[in-house]
Amino acid sequence: MAAGGESKLQLLRSHIRAFPDFPKKGIVFRDICPILKDAAVLKAVIDLFEEHVRNSHQHVDLIVGLDARGFLFGPLLAQRLGVGFVLVRKKGKLPGPTVSVAYDLEYGKAEAEMQADAVAPGQKVLLIDDLLATGGTLKAACDLMRKMQAEVLGCMVVIELKELNGIDKVQPHNVFSLVQY
Amino acid sequence: MAAGGESKLQLLRSHIRAFPDFPKKGIVFRDICPILKDAAVLKAVIDLFEEHVRNSHQHVDLIVGLDARGFLFGPLLAQRLGVGFVLVRKKGKLPGPTVSVAYDLEYGKAEAEMQADAVAPGQKVLLIDDLLATGGTLKAACDLMRKMQAEVLGCMVVIELKELNGIDKVQPHNVFSLVQY
Repeated sequence: MAAGGESKLQLLRSHIRAFPDFPKKGIVFRDICPILKDAAVLKAVIDLFEEHVRNSHQHVDLIVGLDARGFLFGPLLAQRLGVGFVLVRKKGKLPGPTVSVAYDLEYGKAEAEMQADAVAPGQKVLLIDDLLATGGTLKAACDLMRKMQAEVLGCMVVIELKELNGIDKVQPHNVFSLVQY
Repeated sequence: MAAGGESKLQLLRSHIRAFPDFPKKGIVFRDICPILKDAAVLKAVIDLFEEHVRNSHQHVDLIVGLDARGFLFGPLLAQRLGVGFVLVRKKGKLPGPTVSVAYDLEYGKAEAEMQADAVAPGQKVLLIDDLLATGGTLKAACDLMRKMQAEVLGCMVVIELKELNGIDKVQPHNVFSLVQY
């Protein structure tokens, strides 16, 4: 990590709030709103992501962001890198021909969807979201990328909840996280 | 508008796609995905928003973005202006004490919500979303700001659908749009 990286991480950590029992009992919700509310902290987060990408990948074609909190960070990183941003959404939100992948939730199923022309075969993509929990949505998004014949370079999140082992679910793709709990 | 503004608008217009009968018959969906996918076009959109803000407002404290597509543009504009970004979400998504406002949908009701400490009384805020249609959500977000005793400087959208008269609903607040249909 470049000089200043550790102080940026420190700044980031001090702007994540914990709310016990949200959205339900037994879950500690990690709140990223204070990051967004402070321009210097949000800048530091994007600096750290950008530094990781430049150190890890020679070429990136697209940043792919997950609905809805991946939308908060993805376009900022894409602009820094000078590349495009593509949306993965919950089913039914995107017009035109789409490609989708179903995945299991705790109760029931969901589908991750993207436009069929969003990614071309062979394009190198990086996925971004705010948080890695069980990894269900991120794995679905990776599967979607493979279905589109895109090359997944890796995934990036602000926060990883380690005890939920989301990393295992997303394998063989790697997940880079800035803060771990 | 500054030199180059018209060519940026031209670029923007050429990256909005129309999908008839989505999400249901009789509606023409204006698709902004091509804007996000092209780094130069997304940059042009933020340039235009930034120029408008600098020409229209001496001081802005916060950019307030609406879930979910306001999240795509709001943090970029906030970073350009060096100010914070605050989220208005559908009810039940934000942890901690919240403030909410109910509003009518075509069928049924919805609630717009934000964290109770997101905005301080007297702060000057600009609201941002991708699209102004009937204005229901944007009006609810403005009501939310008034409830928090914030000062709404105005609203900004990429696209305004003029025939739906959303502008009237959001009054007395003004809505700045880049493209009108």
